[in-house]
Amino acid sequence: MPNSPAASIPGPEISASEKSEKTAQWVRADRDRLMHPNLPDSRTERTVMVEGRGCHVRDSSGRKYLDAAAVLGVMQVGHGRSEIVEAATAQMSSLECFHIWETMSNDKAIELAVRVTGLAPPGLERAYFTSGGAEGNEIALRMARYFHYRREQPERTWILSRKSAYHGIGYGSGSVSGLPVYHQGFGPVMPDVHHLTAPDPYHAEAYGGEDVTEFCLRELRETIERIGPERIAAMIGEPVMSVGGAVIPPPDYWPRVAELLRSHGILLIFDEVVTGYGRTGRWFAAEHFGVTPDIMVTAKGITSGYVPHGAVLVSDEVAATVTGSTGFPIGFTYTGHPTACAVALANLDIIEGENLLENAVKTGGYLADRLAPLRDLPAVGDVRQIGLMLGVELVADKTARTQLPTGAAPVVQALREDEGIIVRGNPRSLLINPPLVLDRGAADQLADGLFSVLERVGTDGRVRP
Amino acid sequence: MPNSPAASIPGPEISASEKSEKTAQWVRADRDRLMHPNLPDSRTERTVMVEGRGCHVRDSSGRKYLDAAAVLGVMQVGHGRSEIVEAATAQMSSLECFHIWETMSNDKAIELAVRVTGLAPPGLERAYFTSGGAEGNEIALRMARYFHYRREQPERTWILSRKSAYHGIGYGSGSVSGLPVYHQGFGPVMPDVHHLTAPDPYHAEAYGGEDVTEFCLRELRETIERIGPERIAAMIGEPVMSVGGAVIPPPDYWPRVAELLRSHGILLIFDEVVTGYGRTGRWFAAEHFGVTPDIMVTAKGITSGYVPHGAVLVSDEVAATVTGSTGFPIGFTYTGHPTACAVALANLDIIEGENLLENAVKTGGYLADRLAPLRDLPAVGDVRQIGLMLGVELVADKTARTQLPTGAAPVVQALREDEGIIVRGNPRSLLINPPLVLDRGAADQLADGLFSVLERVGTDGRVRP
Repeated sequence: MPNSPAASIPGPEISASEKSEKTAQWVRADRDRLMHPNLPDSRTERTVMVEGRGCHVRDSSGRKYLDAAAVLGVMQVGHGRSEIVEAATAQMSSLECFHIWETMSNDKAIELAVRVTGLAPPGLERAYFTSGGAEGNEIALRMARYFHYRREQPERTWILSRKSAYHGIGYGSGSVSGLPVYHQGFGPVMPDVHHLTAPDPYHAEAYGGEDVTEFCLRELRETIERIGPERIAAMIGEPVMSVGGAVIPPPDYWPRVAELLRSHGILLIFDEVVTGYGRTGRWFAAEHFGVTPDIMVTAKGITSGYVPHGAVLVSDEVAATVTGSTGFPIGFTYTGHPTACAVALANLDIIEGENLLENAVKTGGYLADRLAPLRDLPAVGDVRQIGLMLGVELVADKTARTQLPTGAAPVVQALREDEGIIVRGNPRSLLINPPLVLDRGAADQLADGLFSVLERVGTDGRVRP
Repeated sequence: MPNSPAASIPGPEISASEKSEKTAQWVRADRDRLMHPNLPDSRTERTVMVEGRGCHVRDSSGRKYLDAAAVLGVMQVGHGRSEIVEAATAQMSSLECFHIWETMSNDKAIELAVRVTGLAPPGLERAYFTSGGAEGNEIALRMARYFHYRREQPERTWILSRKSAYHGIGYGSGSVSGLPVYHQGFGPVMPDVHHLTAPDPYHAEAYGGEDVTEFCLRELRETIERIGPERIAAMIGEPVMSVGGAVIPPPDYWPRVAELLRSHGILLIFDEVVTGYGRTGRWFAAEHFGVTPDIMVTAKGITSGYVPHGAVLVSDEVAATVTGSTGFPIGFTYTGHPTACAVALANLDIIEGENLLENAVKTGGYLADRLAPLRDLPAVGDVRQIGLMLGVELVADKTARTQLPTGAAPVVQALREDEGIIVRGNPRSLLINPPLVLDRGAADQLADGLFSVLERVGTDGRVRP
């Protein structure tokens, strides 16, 4: 079984009252000292996670949860994998950290570069390492503009992105993210960015009766014409939108977009931070669409989050152009970090050795079958699945496809509190990205929990007791 | 002895010919697959690092180097510390990774938040965790603007920075960096940034005869007046410039800058990514100047680079304002990463337990004494030292204080090749940031090596054989 470590979390070793006192201390210290993203000051409760095994985690009160969010879509191989711990320990015991600026290098960075470029679609031959997805997207944007600058087209600075896109929250990556919350109040962000309409087959009403792909292609053509192709550096997109709600584009969207961009000399950047390394049942989601981008940003699943890491994969042409006779001047301290690279190698060994891509396809398909009847519930508009990336769109009105006034938050909370299941949500959808080691037992727990909560959701978005 | 692990690197276990063949394979694979920052395509050689102990590292050919750059200024406690490896292994075996979005938390993130806010100057009570310095500066810039937005002054968007500053290379952090190489060819960066003149006591000629602090303060006052204080969010600065050349400002510079900013409601951000956690002989360089910023960005030394991590420390007022009733909407996947936090705690234990701040003062002072006679060499203009942060400014002409036509690169290369000493350089200076466990023996090796190379440097910047 791929996920045998998931079988159990060892029992508690301290008494309930000790646990309760310790937890209370932690919660007080947390409130005084720690800042959390997305946490209003009215929320004083905390869930202090202390342990993980396979698809499950446990908090300081001893409660066990099914981690159907894989932390934040990172945990391909599940929690508590001793193979990865051993690889990290071994590497830290020889060379825990060095840099790869200029001519410096290290064996693990080299081995990982060979490995990931071997897994990537042909045409992505070079790896540039980062510590995460936001860093990767900053690098991708810089590379795209620098590529044209080095080819004596410095006026190619515009970046096309899409509404509802999530590419991280640096000032570059955040500027191409298409969610207003990452813009409002943060002052002027990186200029020369345009957000296109993203394809969303469930919301055909948003495309004025036109075919979704035709609408998007027409808008793209008109946008290129308006800005001028000679001023556009690149288009960036998640092949399957993640934070946006596991939104799967029509099969002809990316091939036609890629062809149009290529005809204008505009680079294509795929953000595969969530979709990479097996999430969708392929190594990279690009494979589903038969499209190879010029730059592919990856992170999360490359190490299953055991140590922060990422890789930007680029074509030889892009690499040679941005390098040139003076070198690419942009780097991070931890580019090519040996321990992170060793952890990535051990993680990829597990994904390969345990056929987790196959499990993502099979268990993902099984889960989709189990969840299909959710569509009959009043609050469920759509169920989407590709590999082990799933989205459940919640609606106030099934015909108008309007979103719940509360968003998914009450459902996410009820799933955790009532069912011990952790998923993420956005204003429209539940986001379900379990570890790729998910087995049928855990899939059943997830499906049963979703039914139990979703059948209690009213048109006001609240979950009835 | 604080650096007893530095005593030796274990001997080679494979034969010279095997090592040579393995190295050749790695170098070929590196050239084919790996991208390096700052590496022109004409440079085909590689140094493949495979091992580190204390202040020394060893490459795949078996050559041992004194790592007087502490990787890239990260390695406070030295390489190969088993205490940190044990802490990482223990944490990865219980909960390697979880997130702290919304109400989620974990014990190691809480303990580290308590620890770092306890070390920081009073007035910095809350910690926001990142995976590195560039992320930290992106967050600091966002927090500064959002702080004013939440206080209904959304027009406060301008950020004051300084020429020669280095704050990382995201599109926000890169926009406040004051080195042209991070701007040219990368298209329009984050708007509303102004770069002031940085104080550099050695280059008095650049201030038109005026006192350095007076010049900088006058320029700051005029800039605030011109832009309008009601449009300025924050000023960001390294308390001691690192990449710029270990440039130590006059003692009255930061106190007077801080006072002026405060009088206009402008936040002060200190970038202590290099200077934090003992580098300058204090926990934070802010202490040297008696100034507490509103936001302090830290990274590198927090984990000595064993696992990428960082912390942005802010005042209760900033934290409460950017959080408010809706929460601070910005976060990274690895904010509060349990393994990174556990590694940081073990690292801080070593810094405290081995009195590494004291060692930075003592050994730094000893090294400064040993290096003082360098000033008599024709190619050396200035030797600067604060704790174990040192800069040696190289000159073509000692009177005109002009830089070598080659920059420091040939000296950096000769130090590595001829003396087995690794330092960094910029166009003007050698940057010397050894591990804080440096002992007198290693300090002597460093000083002797610097003499041996620098006395052979001509006014053309080349190193004579």
